[in-house]
Amino acid sequence: MNLHLPHIPPINKITAEKAVIRHNELTKPLGSLGRLEDLSIQIAGMTDQEHPQIHQKAVFVFAADHGVAEEGISAYPVEVTAQMVANIVKGKAAVSVLAKHVAAKVVVVDVGVAKDISHLFGVIHRKVAFGSRNLRLGPAMELEQVELAINCGMQVLDEQAKSGLDLVALGEIGIGNTTPAATITSAITGLPVESVTGRGTGLDDLGLLRKIEVIKESIRVNQPDPNNALDVLAKVGGLDIAGLVGVIVAAAARRLPIVLDGFITGAAAMIAVKLRSEIKPYLIASHLSAEVGHRTVCKWLGLEPLLDLKLRLGEGSGAMLAVPIIESAVHVLNEMATFNEAGVSRK
Amino acid sequence: MNLHLPHIPPINKITAEKAVIRHNELTKPLGSLGRLEDLSIQIAGMTDQEHPQIHQKAVFVFAADHGVAEEGISAYPVEVTAQMVANIVKGKAAVSVLAKHVAAKVVVVDVGVAKDISHLFGVIHRKVAFGSRNLRLGPAMELEQVELAINCGMQVLDEQAKSGLDLVALGEIGIGNTTPAATITSAITGLPVESVTGRGTGLDDLGLLRKIEVIKESIRVNQPDPNNALDVLAKVGGLDIAGLVGVIVAAAARRLPIVLDGFITGAAAMIAVKLRSEIKPYLIASHLSAEVGHRTVCKWLGLEPLLDLKLRLGEGSGAMLAVPIIESAVHVLNEMATFNEAGVSRK
Repeated sequence: MNLHLPHIPPINKITAEKAVIRHNELTKPLGSLGRLEDLSIQIAGMTDQEHPQIHQKAVFVFAADHGVAEEGISAYPVEVTAQMVANIVKGKAAVSVLAKHVAAKVVVVDVGVAKDISHLFGVIHRKVAFGSRNLRLGPAMELEQVELAINCGMQVLDEQAKSGLDLVALGEIGIGNTTPAATITSAITGLPVESVTGRGTGLDDLGLLRKIEVIKESIRVNQPDPNNALDVLAKVGGLDIAGLVGVIVAAAARRLPIVLDGFITGAAAMIAVKLRSEIKPYLIASHLSAEVGHRTVCKWLGLEPLLDLKLRLGEGSGAMLAVPIIESAVHVLNEMATFNEAGVSRK
Repeated sequence: MNLHLPHIPPINKITAEKAVIRHNELTKPLGSLGRLEDLSIQIAGMTDQEHPQIHQKAVFVFAADHGVAEEGISAYPVEVTAQMVANIVKGKAAVSVLAKHVAAKVVVVDVGVAKDISHLFGVIHRKVAFGSRNLRLGPAMELEQVELAINCGMQVLDEQAKSGLDLVALGEIGIGNTTPAATITSAITGLPVESVTGRGTGLDDLGLLRKIEVIKESIRVNQPDPNNALDVLAKVGGLDIAGLVGVIVAAAARRLPIVLDGFITGAAAMIAVKLRSEIKPYLIASHLSAEVGHRTVCKWLGLEPLLDLKLRLGEGSGAMLAVPIIESAVHVLNEMATFNEAGVSRK
């Protein structure tokens, strides 16, 4: 084992309480900003700042291929992963467009794309393997590969944090990756495969049935141990998901708010929380994905998504849409007047 | 009658269809941007632009007092309306803070504040009356006052539009104004008062019961005619709501997207749609308010709110939070690559 996970500090409840007190002094009916208030209080606690500042934002998009794609569990061919990485760094994918308008940096990491894309400028090249193996036939990854990918995620986060980072958003691109995400979800929650498996990028009925069969078979073959997160990740996960686990752990260690995207980043969060339960309060669910298993993931994580816009694109697109909401939460806490300051009468 | 409502052009369905076609060419699984796609298609149709541009935004905050406040139907004293107007123009209220960060202009209009606030800089002074009358005892306004307030709303919108306007958001401030909003909602939908009346800024149980009694009495005394929107507005509405009706009508006439806030702006939209049903497709529901009657209003208007953050503040705060979502919808339509442009493989 070459994996050394950092210490995760607890939320500072005193700082959070100061934010509660301030909210009750601001010129608005008590509690009238609803979830915006909760969010700003949570961020005050996690950052240990009475007036949290969110200036530098980044979305970490981990790219990898999945051997299981050869089972026909995706509506798109495998080469799309590499093509979409190129599209993202060119600024023309959904996450690129959305990130630009919320001033978030897009950090794209090749942790396991099946094709050689080392010529692509703007990508962080940390390929651990040319894709994971087919999890229907045996473990998707060696434990060493999982550790390399998690370390990669932690390093990439730490490198970005050196130049300043106030908010971490998660994204991914990897044809076939709703299959490992669904397998992880079923393995960890113990819920039936059928209840957590969706159509991904757009499978038809027959494709969905095949996907369910593949997932069931992969669990039967691999017997992932739900009490051993690394075992689950190695056997039925993927390199993108492992990289994201590293980002989550390193971000929580730095007291950074972590904005999840959809189903795949959610599966990564489940693994991360299994590894270190102290990570939980650093997580923010940006949106409820239209991918069917995501509701289960959010429930397991104890998170209530901020948005429900029927998105199922991934890449970090939903996380980008939640960024202005999260920033707004902090702005009202920091910038509104109190009743006394404004000379406004109370009840 | 001195009210001349402008012609409302229909949505251009051909332009909307072009947006549908473009969405199906963009580098993402078909339909995977969910409500973002619907929203951009709707905006293409309403603006009649294949690539709609949202640059100049404004939130129109109409301020007025309500004679019915003397019945003790609000948790806050009447003087708070004028105090909050001052707080808004100072940039320290929720709507001011939120608007600043989405680069929306805050247009505050005194259409009926009970106090003389003519000294306040940054307010558009168009006071029709020093508040409406107590609707429990008789009509809240004369029909002439309603017409003046609607004309005021139309004029203010037209003046702002002269210097450029791409998106219109609605807001209000007026102690007691959930009472006329609930009364309008019950009068128009025919639903029981109890089912559409909430706690406003924070009434206790006794206050809520009193509010319900006041509303029932106002309907009994005034007998508003649900088939005559101006009659409903005059008898059980308010000057802020009437001003907003004018804004809505004038904005739809100019093909501008209209972003509703919560319960009060929703009541104004009901009146506007009763006056001109062609307005409906120009409306966007920003959020579902925690104020109980708002769900009924959205349902009546046929709108699905974009956000559900348990807000119940008003001022236009919820509308401001939806602005980045609406802008994002337009950005992905305009700026993403197509499959052909990006060289990404299809299914």
